[in-house]
Amino acid sequence: MPLYLDIHRNVKGMTPKKLADAHQKDLEVQDKHGVKYLKYWYNEGEGTVFCLCEAPSKEAAQAVHREAHGGVADEVIEVEEGS
Amino acid sequence: MPLYLDIHRNVKGMTPKKLADAHQKDLEVQDKHGVKYLKYWYNEGEGTVFCLCEAPSKEAAQAVHREAHGGVADEVIEVEEGS
Repeated sequence: MPLYLDIHRNVKGMTPKKLADAHQKDLEVQDKHGVKYLKYWYNEGEGTVFCLCEAPSKEAAQAVHREAHGGVADEVIEVEEGS
Repeated sequence: MPLYLDIHRNVKGMTPKKLADAHQKDLEVQDKHGVKYLKYWYNEGEGTVFCLCEAPSKEAAQAVHREAHGGVADEVIEVEEGS
């Protein structure tokens, strides 16, 4: 399954707790879209979030975010993992 | 130690092999800068690369890339890893 890294920029009012809750919601709805969110990284001060997921398409990855909490990514980039 | 995700954009003539070689060079020079490159992901068609590393500073992370192969990142973002 393709791997994607997405980038969310300037997320307003982000806190680690709110982000963990949003990620949990992603995990709860991802199965119906065939997506698996694997990890995320964030910079609280900048409001930047990176999510790594396996998904059948870029659109499916975004559909999970849209359904779970509405916070879609600014960019979704298909990636290969380096060895 | 702080964790950083960096982004390289529009890397010309990138191939998985060239990237693996560049990453290997990072690993060879990182110790003197106190940096540990952990993983990378890339999109060959777009010429985009993301590197995850532990480093004492953003500047130290870039110094490794500069010394190893000259390909510094366009952005280096300090991150926390989500759980």
